[in-house]
Amino acid sequence: MTKTAPFQVPDAVALLRRTPAALDALLRGLPDLWVRGTEGVDTWSAYDIVAHLIYTDHESWLPRFRHILEHGEQVPFQPFDRGGHKAGLRGQSLDQLLDEFSQTRAQSLAALEALRLSPTDLERCGLHPRLGSISLGSVLAAWPVHDLNHIHQISRVMARQYAEPVGPWTSFMGVLNCDAHGA
Amino acid sequence: MTKTAPFQVPDAVALLRRTPAALDALLRGLPDLWVRGTEGVDTWSAYDIVAHLIYTDHESWLPRFRHILEHGEQVPFQPFDRGGHKAGLRGQSLDQLLDEFSQTRAQSLAALEALRLSPTDLERCGLHPRLGSISLGSVLAAWPVHDLNHIHQISRVMARQYAEPVGPWTSFMGVLNCDAHGA
Repeated sequence: MTKTAPFQVPDAVALLRRTPAALDALLRGLPDLWVRGTEGVDTWSAYDIVAHLIYTDHESWLPRFRHILEHGEQVPFQPFDRGGHKAGLRGQSLDQLLDEFSQTRAQSLAALEALRLSPTDLERCGLHPRLGSISLGSVLAAWPVHDLNHIHQISRVMARQYAEPVGPWTSFMGVLNCDAHGA
Repeated sequence: MTKTAPFQVPDAVALLRRTPAALDALLRGLPDLWVRGTEGVDTWSAYDIVAHLIYTDHESWLPRFRHILEHGEQVPFQPFDRGGHKAGLRGQSLDQLLDEFSQTRAQSLAALEALRLSPTDLERCGLHPRLGSISLGSVLAAWPVHDLNHIHQISRVMARQYAEPVGPWTSFMGVLNCDAHGA
């Protein structure tokens, strides 16, 4: 592992700003094989994952930053419903979700900027219902990693649609041997 | 695992066509923290992975399709140098590599189209020096999975740059617990 640099908000924002366009370039117009295929019952397709990313922007990140600034560790975060995006889906196409993710993320980053977080704010701690005390800086650092976590998942879910055609080459493809590690 | 659909060349091409733009949208202009960070000595950064994708387009996929069409199983594939891209790097910027990947991939797909592969061609077998007999269809299916394998790797390498700032949130981030599975 290389030494990690100190956390800087602009580094996080630079990545957060690019995720919607990266997923748009990868997914828009692809055959359903790739974007609707899952890893089995009760697992997610690329389509589901984009819906989840929109949902978490609305329900998780900004609300938690505001919660820490308002309540500190006095009131734990509201529990987050990992599958909560399903209730909001109303038959949108993937293209509609990609448009919505782009707009939602731009709004999220504008709202983040409006918070004008100081170094002291980043050190303030909140109370996660399962993880315990966590600083605002760590929650903010987790946001781009959450994007990367789901890009990791999308690449795996898509690759698995070709597990059969790839045949003996499977042994060389780490992505086909990924056990998901919880996502 | 969902039932996989029969392999169709246009599905593979649809994904192959999108990879350069997806990596461009994700990586161009990002701070070096994200694109030059590795997982330690002798591991790859996102920059190295883009160079590898260019190299494999030149040295692996099309040459192997042509090799199978010419030699069948009579002559094994030339061994492939997994780190061969390093010799070709001459201090290019990431932006230059992203431009080169876009051009190289477009040329590769034009060359693939020019082969006018028939269903019979896809069933022809070649001899991989380590995997043994493998059909041209399986080699072709492995090409987009190889792209996804390296998107999977890029997301993991980038996420690891934030392993420290994320703090206790690490346990929820599967990508930070991925053991690489060989790539």
